Amino acid sequence: MNDAPTALPVAVPSTALFTDQYELTMVQAALRAGTAHRPSVFEVFTRRLPEGRRYGVVAGTGRVLDAVENFRFEPALLDWLRERKVVDEATVDWLAGYRFGGDIDGYPEGEVYFPGSPIMTVRGTFAECVVLETVILSILNHDSAVAAAASRMAVAAGDRPLIEMGARRTHELAAVAAARAAYVGGFSSTSDLAAGFRYGIPTVGTSAHAFTLLHDSERQAFTAQVESLGSGTTLLVDTYDVTEAVRTAVEVAGPGLGAVRIDSGDLLVVAHRVRRQLDELGATGTRIVVTSDLDEYAIASLAAAPVDAYGVGTRLVTGSGHPTCSMVYKLVARAGEDHGGGEGEGAPLVPVAKKSLGGKLSIGGRKWAARPVDAHGAAEAEVVGTGPVPPELADRQVPVELMRAGRAVARESLDAARDRHRRVREALPLSASQLSRGEPVLPTRYTGTA
Amino acid sequence: MNDAPTALPVAVPSTALFTDQYELTMVQAALRAGTAHRPSVFEVFTRRLPEGRRYGVVAGTGRVLDAVENFRFEPALLDWLRERKVVDEATVDWLAGYRFGGDIDGYPEGEVYFPGSPIMTVRGTFAECVVLETVILSILNHDSAVAAAASRMAVAAGDRPLIEMGARRTHELAAVAAARAAYVGGFSSTSDLAAGFRYGIPTVGTSAHAFTLLHDSERQAFTAQVESLGSGTTLLVDTYDVTEAVRTAVEVAGPGLGAVRIDSGDLLVVAHRVRRQLDELGATGTRIVVTSDLDEYAIASLAAAPVDAYGVGTRLVTGSGHPTCSMVYKLVARAGEDHGGGEGEGAPLVPVAKKSLGGKLSIGGRKWAARPVDAHGAAEAEVVGTGPVPPELADRQVPVELMRAGRAVARESLDAARDRHRRVREALPLSASQLSRGEPVLPTRYTGTA
Repeated sequence: MNDAPTALPVAVPSTALFTDQYELTMVQAALRAGTAHRPSVFEVFTRRLPEGRRYGVVAGTGRVLDAVENFRFEPALLDWLRERKVVDEATVDWLAGYRFGGDIDGYPEGEVYFPGSPIMTVRGTFAECVVLETVILSILNHDSAVAAAASRMAVAAGDRPLIEMGARRTHELAAVAAARAAYVGGFSSTSDLAAGFRYGIPTVGTSAHAFTLLHDSERQAFTAQVESLGSGTTLLVDTYDVTEAVRTAVEVAGPGLGAVRIDSGDLLVVAHRVRRQLDELGATGTRIVVTSDLDEYAIASLAAAPVDAYGVGTRLVTGSGHPTCSMVYKLVARAGEDHGGGEGEGAPLVPVAKKSLGGKLSIGGRKWAARPVDAHGAAEAEVVGTGPVPPELADRQVPVELMRAGRAVARESLDAARDRHRRVREALPLSASQLSRGEPVLPTRYTGTA
Repeated sequence: MNDAPTALPVAVPSTALFTDQYELTMVQAALRAGTAHRPSVFEVFTRRLPEGRRYGVVAGTGRVLDAVENFRFEPALLDWLRERKVVDEATVDWLAGYRFGGDIDGYPEGEVYFPGSPIMTVRGTFAECVVLETVILSILNHDSAVAAAASRMAVAAGDRPLIEMGARRTHELAAVAAARAAYVGGFSSTSDLAAGFRYGIPTVGTSAHAFTLLHDSERQAFTAQVESLGSGTTLLVDTYDVTEAVRTAVEVAGPGLGAVRIDSGDLLVVAHRVRRQLDELGATGTRIVVTSDLDEYAIASLAAAPVDAYGVGTRLVTGSGHPTCSMVYKLVARAGEDHGGGEGEGAPLVPVAKKSLGGKLSIGGRKWAARPVDAHGAAEAEVVGTGPVPPELADRQVPVELMRAGRAVARESLDAARDRHRRVREALPLSASQLSRGEPVLPTRYTGTA
C-alpha cells in the first residue's frame, strides 16, 4: 500500500493516471510491432439510449479538453510504471514524451445525441489516441448521465428554478462534475461550494435540521438565523410541526421572509397548506422550496402546487435510474500496412469494426452527422454517414472542431453550453418533453457508404 | 466562470471545499447566536438498506480519516468565500483557523451494517462537526454502495477472482474510490492505474478490440502481443470468429498461453466451447476470462461454466442498481443552554431528534452497537442502544475508536479491511449469501433508553 501523505483523498499527478492498464500494454505491443504510429480514428458513440429515454445530453466536453491537454506522464508516475513493470522501458520512454498532438471533433457541450451519433472523433496515431480512451469515457459517461437527468427535471420544472444538492450522495469529486453537468442540463444553482469555486456556478444554502435541533427552541433557532442571515433567508419548517414553524417563522422574520423549505411529508398537501398559511399571515412574497427525494416525476406531479423552487439530490447525481451512459470509444479507421510509419494526412484509411457476436451496431469508417429540420425548424432526424457529406446537409452538421494539433479550439463558458442545451432541446419534436418511456424522438438514419 | 488553469479536471486546494454551503451559513448563524461551540454528537446511520439487500458494507472509512485530517480552509478558498460573501468576516476568520479537534468512533472499514447501525459517531463542538457532514457522507455513501455490490459479486464468484474494470463508466476519480471499495468488498485486482498508484491495488490489463483492429490480421495482432507481453498474456478472442481466434491464439502463443478473454455473446455457451477447444489444442492450463456486462446474477449463472476469472465494470461501479446509500449525518445530542461556552467532556448532553412527518426512524442520543453471537459463533442481531452498554454485550461492540482529538488512531491497510469484510460476512447467517431479495439478515434491536 502506498502511504504517501496526501492533501486530497486521492492524490494523482495528472489525468494520465485515470487510465486502464491495457491502454499502455497495447502501446507497448504496438510500439514493438511497428504499428503504434499508424494514423487512426477513434469514435465515441453509444449503441442505445438508456431504456425509454428519448434523447441523450452531451456533457463533460469542456472537462475532456482539460483532461486531454493535461494528459502527461509525470516522473512519479513513470517511476511507478517502471518499478511495477506495468510496461517495458521503451514504452516508459515513449510515455515520458507523451503529449496529444492530434485533432478532436465532436458534439458541442449541451447538444443532444441519439444511438449512433458520433459524439466525439479523435484522430492521431494509434498510440496517442488509444491512451485517452479511459479518461474520455469516464468524463462523458458520467457527466452526460447527470445532464440527461437534469434536462428531464428541467422540462418537468418549467420556469421554476432547480437547485442541485446531491453532493452527499455521490463521490466528493463526482459531485463537482455532477453540479456542472446539472447546470448544463438546466439547473440554476448548486449547494456544492467546490462547484462554485471551480466553475462559478451560483451556490445556495442556509440551514439544516441540525441547526434547529442545536437550539433550545425552534424560535431561538429561527431568530439566530434571521439575525445572522437576514429576513431574506430560507427557514426550514419541518423539524417539528410545520404549521407552528411557519407561524413562528413569520413572527420572527416578518412578512418579508424570503422562503420556507419543506423537506418531508406529502409535499403537494403541505405546500398548499403552507402557501395558504403564509398568505393569511401576509407573507405573500415568501417563497416555498421543496427538497424531499425529488425526481422528474415528483417534480411534474407538483406542477400545480404552489412551489417556487425544487432542490434535487440523490436522483439527480445518480442519473435518475441511469447513473452512467453506455458510450464506447472504438477504433473505426486506421492506416494500412504501407502507412505504418505515420505518414498521416491524406493517406486513405481502412475502415475497421468488430464483427460482433450479438449483432451490435458497429460501423467502420469516420462518421459525419447532420440534423435536418422541417419547415417549422423542428429537427427531423439524426443522419449519420461515412464518405462525403451531402451538400444539402452541409450546414446542418452537428459536430464542431474541439481540438487541433493537441490544442483546444472550442473553449466556451458553461453558460454557453447551458444555453445551447435549452435551444437544442426546444428544437426537438414535442415528444422530447414527455417523461414517459418511449423511442428516441429522432430516428438515426445511416447514409453514404455506411 | 473561473478560468484558472488547472492541472486536474477539478482543482481544489483541500477537502474543505467538498462542502454544502449551508454547513457554513449554519456556522455563521450559530457563531453569532453563541451556540456554535456547544458540545455535540453527530451520527451517521441509515434508516434502511437498498430494497431487498440483506446487509450493507461500510467502505471509505480510511478515506474519511484522510479527508477530515486535511479539512482546511486554504487562503484561496477563504478569499473566494469572502469575495462571494458566502459567509461574513467573523465566519471566514473562524474557518481560517479550522482544524477538527474532536473524536470519531465508527464501524471499521469492511464491517457490515444494518438499518439503525451507528456507522460513525462524530463528537466535538457543533461548528467543528457540522462542517464535516457533506464530505463524510459523500465518501461513505459512494464507497459503501460499491463495496456492497462487490461483496455480492464476491459471494457469487466463490473462489474465482474478480477484476474491477469500471473506470470508464464512472467519474474518473470516483473510479479510483470504486476500485478501492471493490477491493474491500472482495475483488482481487483493478484495471485502473490510479487505484494501483494510490492504493497499491494489483493492476491488470492486456488489450482491447482496437489492438486487433489496428493490425492487418488477427494473427498479426496476436503475434505482436505475444512477442511483447509474452505467452502468459491474455488474448482477446471475440473480435471476429471466436473458434478461429482460439486456434490462432494457441498457434501463436503455444499451449502455454496464459488466458483468453471473451467479451460478448452467450458467455455460458461460448465458455464451454472455448474450454473444450483449448483442451483439445493441449492448452489445458490456459484460463478463460469473461467480461461482458456482468453483475452478481450473471456471475452466479456462470458458476458451473469453465470460467476462471470475471471482469466487472458498469454494474460494479454503479452499485448494481443502487449507486448510493442513504446514509445521513444527524445531530443526536448536544449541550443545553448552560453549556453554550463549550465546557465539553462530562457535561450531560440533551438527546435531540427531528419529529418526522413520515414516521421515519429518528432516535436521539448517542448510540452504541453490539452484535451478539449464537453458540456456533454466528451473529444473531444488531443491538443498538443508548445509555450504558449491558455488561454481557461489552465485548461484542462493533464501533471502534477512529480518531481522537483530530488525529486518526485506527489507520490500517486496505488488506486488513478486505480480510475483515470476508471474516464478518462469513459470520453472518447463511442467508447473507442469497442474492435474491429479502429482509436484512440481522434484525436491529433497540434497547436501553432508546
